[in-house]
Amino acid sequence: MHTLVLLRHGQSRWNLENRFTGWTDVDLSPQGHEEARAAARLLLAEGLDFDVCHASCLRRAIDTLWTVLREMDRMWLPTQISWRLNERHYGALQGLDKAETAARYGKEQVFAWRRSYDVPPPPLPPGDARDPGADRRYADLAPHELPRCESLKDTVARVLPHWERVIAPQVRQGRRVLVAAHGNSLRALVKHLDGMGEAEVAGLNIPTGIPLVYELDDDLNALGRRYLGDPEAARRAAQAVADQAGGGGAAG
Amino acid sequence: MHTLVLLRHGQSRWNLENRFTGWTDVDLSPQGHEEARAAARLLLAEGLDFDVCHASCLRRAIDTLWTVLREMDRMWLPTQISWRLNERHYGALQGLDKAETAARYGKEQVFAWRRSYDVPPPPLPPGDARDPGADRRYADLAPHELPRCESLKDTVARVLPHWERVIAPQVRQGRRVLVAAHGNSLRALVKHLDGMGEAEVAGLNIPTGIPLVYELDDDLNALGRRYLGDPEAARRAAQAVADQAGGGGAAG
Repeated sequence: MHTLVLLRHGQSRWNLENRFTGWTDVDLSPQGHEEARAAARLLLAEGLDFDVCHASCLRRAIDTLWTVLREMDRMWLPTQISWRLNERHYGALQGLDKAETAARYGKEQVFAWRRSYDVPPPPLPPGDARDPGADRRYADLAPHELPRCESLKDTVARVLPHWERVIAPQVRQGRRVLVAAHGNSLRALVKHLDGMGEAEVAGLNIPTGIPLVYELDDDLNALGRRYLGDPEAARRAAQAVADQAGGGGAAG
Repeated sequence: MHTLVLLRHGQSRWNLENRFTGWTDVDLSPQGHEEARAAARLLLAEGLDFDVCHASCLRRAIDTLWTVLREMDRMWLPTQISWRLNERHYGALQGLDKAETAARYGKEQVFAWRRSYDVPPPPLPPGDARDPGADRRYADLAPHELPRCESLKDTVARVLPHWERVIAPQVRQGRRVLVAAHGNSLRALVKHLDGMGEAEVAGLNIPTGIPLVYELDDDLNALGRRYLGDPEAARRAAQAVADQAGGGGAAG
């Protein structure tokens, strides 16, 4: 049996300000750092340990991972960074206040952008300074890989190759893997591991900073999954995500 | 022409307490963190940037690197960790106060341990809890690779294969490399790059937290090297290392 741990980054400064974040590279809030430390304490209390770590190339995920590794005295563990674990790209909505956006476009439109499986938000306009093609960290991507917006379906489509090619082979080899990432990139993994349908994953809320532990068989089928710590705390944290700006908060 | 930057970790808690540290995994001191931030500011002011980073598997080096990457907004850069960049293993001296050790064994003996090229300190006794073989991070090492003490010569012998096999090929490919490591593992690299003799490298003091920039030709011969920032500050910092406990402080 194999163990895999998924961890959504702690609260970011834009979670706190209730803005669409996507690929914007914002810092953790002080509470987000505390959530990461609490995650490390839960992992230690459970006796979990790791051989290799993964994170997106966004600092709120890396900072969450670094904080966990520091607390666990595992700063030396090998870590692989990949854009494929990034948050869903939120296009032209990035930076906008979620409540203001609902007032401007209507709640139903915003709900569709945030909670549908395959409706992308409006793309970044051509030449926008936030185009990932202008960011050195994405210099190795092919032009068709550089998103200007993504639906959850698009996010799933670029996360899963990283699972198949990089992470899953490590798990099969018996390495204990920790993945620090985002609401939507983790939903992509959960959808795959649990064989979830599109509607079900669109309604799934993953709380920040609470380790999600999978037990997998040798074919990497999920035998079970659970959040560490107090189940009621995990439920409340997931509900808080769902409640953000009137529903759909997992969509970061 | 290629650029390579070497960075000795900032002051550690045991530097501050004047103890032999070696492979003991101590934290940076608050001043050590500040030195790392200052190193990042020097790199930014110089317009230097990186494609790949290296660190030892000791937290004072990793923390120095993480602090630099955070300040430079480069947390996403790939980083390779290797025990081959660790500090010289200080054997049974690890944990001892440098001044007390001089009082007990005599200044000349301590000077020989610290400043000779090929005299190792007394080894860890068999079964010592600090034996690297008992530490999971060294689980992949062959038994003959696990030191119980090292001379500077021994340190050079295990650093250089990492240079030849891992770091130098990256530099040759045009990747800009940052190495965060220790007084003696960096002396090993400097000895190699500058073609220094044994006596010369034994007398070399590398200051903490000041980036050392090499310019290398395509065959990786050193065309020049310089410390960033105020040359007088670098000279004073190197002298402070030399003065620790009466000479020989580079031997950490």
